[in-house]
Amino acid sequence: MNALLTQLRALVGDAHVLTHDDPATDLSAWEQDWRKRAHGRALAVVRPGSTDEVAGVVKACVAARVSIVPQGGNTGMVVGSVPDDTGTQVVLSLSRMKAVRELDAANLTITVEAGCVLQELQETAERAELLFPLSLAAEGSCTIGGNLATNAGGTQVVRYGNTRDLCLGLEVVTAQGQIWHGLGGLRKDNTGYDLRNLFVGSEGTLGIITAATLKLYPRPAARLTAWTAVPSLDAAVELLGLAHQHLGAGLTGFEVMGQFALSLVNKHFSQLRVPLWRDTPYCVLLENSDSESEAHARAQFERLLETALEREVLNDAVVAENLAQAQQLWHIRESIPLAQAEEGLNIKHDISVPVSRIPAFCHETDALLQREIPGVRLVNFGHLGDGNLHYNVQAPEGTDGPLFLKSYEEKVNSLVFDAVKRYHGSISAEHGIGSLKVGKLPLYKDPVAMALMRQIKLSLDPLNLLNPGRVIEP
Amino acid sequence: MNALLTQLRALVGDAHVLTHDDPATDLSAWEQDWRKRAHGRALAVVRPGSTDEVAGVVKACVAARVSIVPQGGNTGMVVGSVPDDTGTQVVLSLSRMKAVRELDAANLTITVEAGCVLQELQETAERAELLFPLSLAAEGSCTIGGNLATNAGGTQVVRYGNTRDLCLGLEVVTAQGQIWHGLGGLRKDNTGYDLRNLFVGSEGTLGIITAATLKLYPRPAARLTAWTAVPSLDAAVELLGLAHQHLGAGLTGFEVMGQFALSLVNKHFSQLRVPLWRDTPYCVLLENSDSESEAHARAQFERLLETALEREVLNDAVVAENLAQAQQLWHIRESIPLAQAEEGLNIKHDISVPVSRIPAFCHETDALLQREIPGVRLVNFGHLGDGNLHYNVQAPEGTDGPLFLKSYEEKVNSLVFDAVKRYHGSISAEHGIGSLKVGKLPLYKDPVAMALMRQIKLSLDPLNLLNPGRVIEP
Repeated sequence: MNALLTQLRALVGDAHVLTHDDPATDLSAWEQDWRKRAHGRALAVVRPGSTDEVAGVVKACVAARVSIVPQGGNTGMVVGSVPDDTGTQVVLSLSRMKAVRELDAANLTITVEAGCVLQELQETAERAELLFPLSLAAEGSCTIGGNLATNAGGTQVVRYGNTRDLCLGLEVVTAQGQIWHGLGGLRKDNTGYDLRNLFVGSEGTLGIITAATLKLYPRPAARLTAWTAVPSLDAAVELLGLAHQHLGAGLTGFEVMGQFALSLVNKHFSQLRVPLWRDTPYCVLLENSDSESEAHARAQFERLLETALEREVLNDAVVAENLAQAQQLWHIRESIPLAQAEEGLNIKHDISVPVSRIPAFCHETDALLQREIPGVRLVNFGHLGDGNLHYNVQAPEGTDGPLFLKSYEEKVNSLVFDAVKRYHGSISAEHGIGSLKVGKLPLYKDPVAMALMRQIKLSLDPLNLLNPGRVIEP
Repeated sequence: MNALLTQLRALVGDAHVLTHDDPATDLSAWEQDWRKRAHGRALAVVRPGSTDEVAGVVKACVAARVSIVPQGGNTGMVVGSVPDDTGTQVVLSLSRMKAVRELDAANLTITVEAGCVLQELQETAERAELLFPLSLAAEGSCTIGGNLATNAGGTQVVRYGNTRDLCLGLEVVTAQGQIWHGLGGLRKDNTGYDLRNLFVGSEGTLGIITAATLKLYPRPAARLTAWTAVPSLDAAVELLGLAHQHLGAGLTGFEVMGQFALSLVNKHFSQLRVPLWRDTPYCVLLENSDSESEAHARAQFERLLETALEREVLNDAVVAENLAQAQQLWHIRESIPLAQAEEGLNIKHDISVPVSRIPAFCHETDALLQREIPGVRLVNFGHLGDGNLHYNVQAPEGTDGPLFLKSYEEKVNSLVFDAVKRYHGSISAEHGIGSLKVGKLPLYKDPVAMALMRQIKLSLDPLNLLNPGRVIEP
């Protein structure tokens, strides 16, 4: 291995190859995952400064048969970007490659390197009076390379799609250390297989994304946020239909939050003053982004909410008067995971089913869990506009958290995932598979799909050196 | 081969296996391509009635080592769906599989079989007061399976994307005759590699799409069409930027048409009364789809056009007063290929470059062609909103068409494609590769991308039995 390290140092410079040999170097930022579920041990953390250097690192590792764990902001949720505990894997960090290579306003595109932090990308677009719509909780530290590798979702998907839908071109280093120059801002290109989408969402197991050309949008003239109390999940789905009709593509956010989830925010962050939650099973947050004006957005919202009131699909609603109020409403929504953490350990899910089946899925699964685990508490919230729920399960009040997890995690996961399968849903809507769900996937995914995935992995990375043990096991 | 035919007849029924053995059977509808550039000879045309039958046909053909040409409406532009002339290939027609399996209004999805004709799909959505936005000239006979296999484009891409962007799930028969059950109306599903997009656009070379789940949209409350005269291509691009800003996602069409293209419509279809074309190098057709009302759409259009007039990015404009007028304006746009055919043979291209580079690309390539072929006439029109031009080349006035084609087709293609490459564009924006461009592709596509495509083809169809000779040669 010393020969490899020497070679890597020659390639990227001594300062950018970090190892445990230097006792002063703390590698835990690269070795520990975001949710602190795994702590690995790397042979080295290598930080190339260019695409050519990435290609060189890959070639050197392939020659030495050393496997590579690509890493962006290391904010993933499924243990997909940290090394295993063998001390034999190289972490390839893209963090130094963060340049904005080009912003083409007339083409509504931006080309950036993989290590660019999402928030910096958003801000660069904003300075050009344009919008990069991807938005998620970790945006201050996650990188666009990681977003692409995991096809990240977030809160604007109902209008703009997942990261995949925002990507027009890629630059990728293959498992053999070749560079695919696939950047470019084309809206249409039917010259062969869709390699771009194959790499997007492959979690670094098929190639290493080093740069991307992404879509930009005109900035909306106004964004308005409403908070509503709905009498049931069925009503929430009906409200979504009305919102699609009334707002068209103006509908940029549609988040549902169960009463217990909001009660936790109220309990642990009472200063946030959660509106309308006490007498209703669910609240829905809606966002309307208008290309015209705030007055127009407000008038549209009013018509929508009036219609919804008339049809009894909502009981009550407030529309934010200004940006500060809107941010506060979003802040409540985003505080649910923190409030949940304050309440104690819990079992998290990131599932999707067709929007139309969400109510039946929740009724059935709620009842099932309550029967199996008396007193269990359901922290149900998420992106209803995309059929994506963070259907989380909290221990019964007063129960010991770690003991609950130990006793019930497997069982709860099976109950929820089995239900998801019955409803033709996904056991990972936006977080990916990583190593956390790699064992579960074959139980829930179509076997022919699994076989196709295995063929593709074997074909593009026959030595299984790129992020092995993630997504699919050979 | 007789054994295979017997087996196929047993699988799908005698009536659905057509061969040349029966002299009364005319197979030319399946053997001749849409643009009449190729006429092949099939061993048989097989028309399975179910996905299981498709799988059975594939297995039988694989066992006999007979290659399969999947076919939908056979309206493709690049000779991708007819057999070669060896008489050894089986045409697998999906035309009997045209059921609408499910329309889920609350989920805004529809699940249909591959043989469903696009127009029937549009009409089914319309009856549910929803919109399936894909729209293209062949919609009366093309099938959704073909649209997916070729990732068809059309006139609404600027808002709704290509067929790929409208697809949420697929059912596919693999090259081994396995069925991948990948249907389902999920907006988010990050459980592994993006198989869906790999099959979409693969032109039947990786698997046979038998059904799909597709996105639906609320029907806009109003659609308005405007016709404008712009002083230059630069101005057209600037107008596009203004339209994005003013109309947001309301902008559903943005078509550019050069003066010579319009002069041909005027010459051959004078009854169509082309507006504003005489004193301007380019006209632009814009469509605004509004979720609110016609009055609102009209007011928005007026503001946009006033701003554009002030900034001198347009000289003149008319807004259609009613649906009939709007249809007439679209009809003029759609008559350009026909007018061109009336004028004589010509060399067609379907190229894209980044929108921002369209003016420079056209200036440079126009000049180049005029220098190389004095008197050449350029029929330039297309979907400027997507950077996609049908940059067609007509013989000099009075020249013999066939002779012109014979002398200049290769040279013109090379000049245009070389220019496209310099501008980081695509030599096939929406039509695909088929067999027509399969030889050209390696000259213009990134070599690493070609190698990756080859690896994938070899991995999923190792015997090269699915639509061989299309997209990529092994």
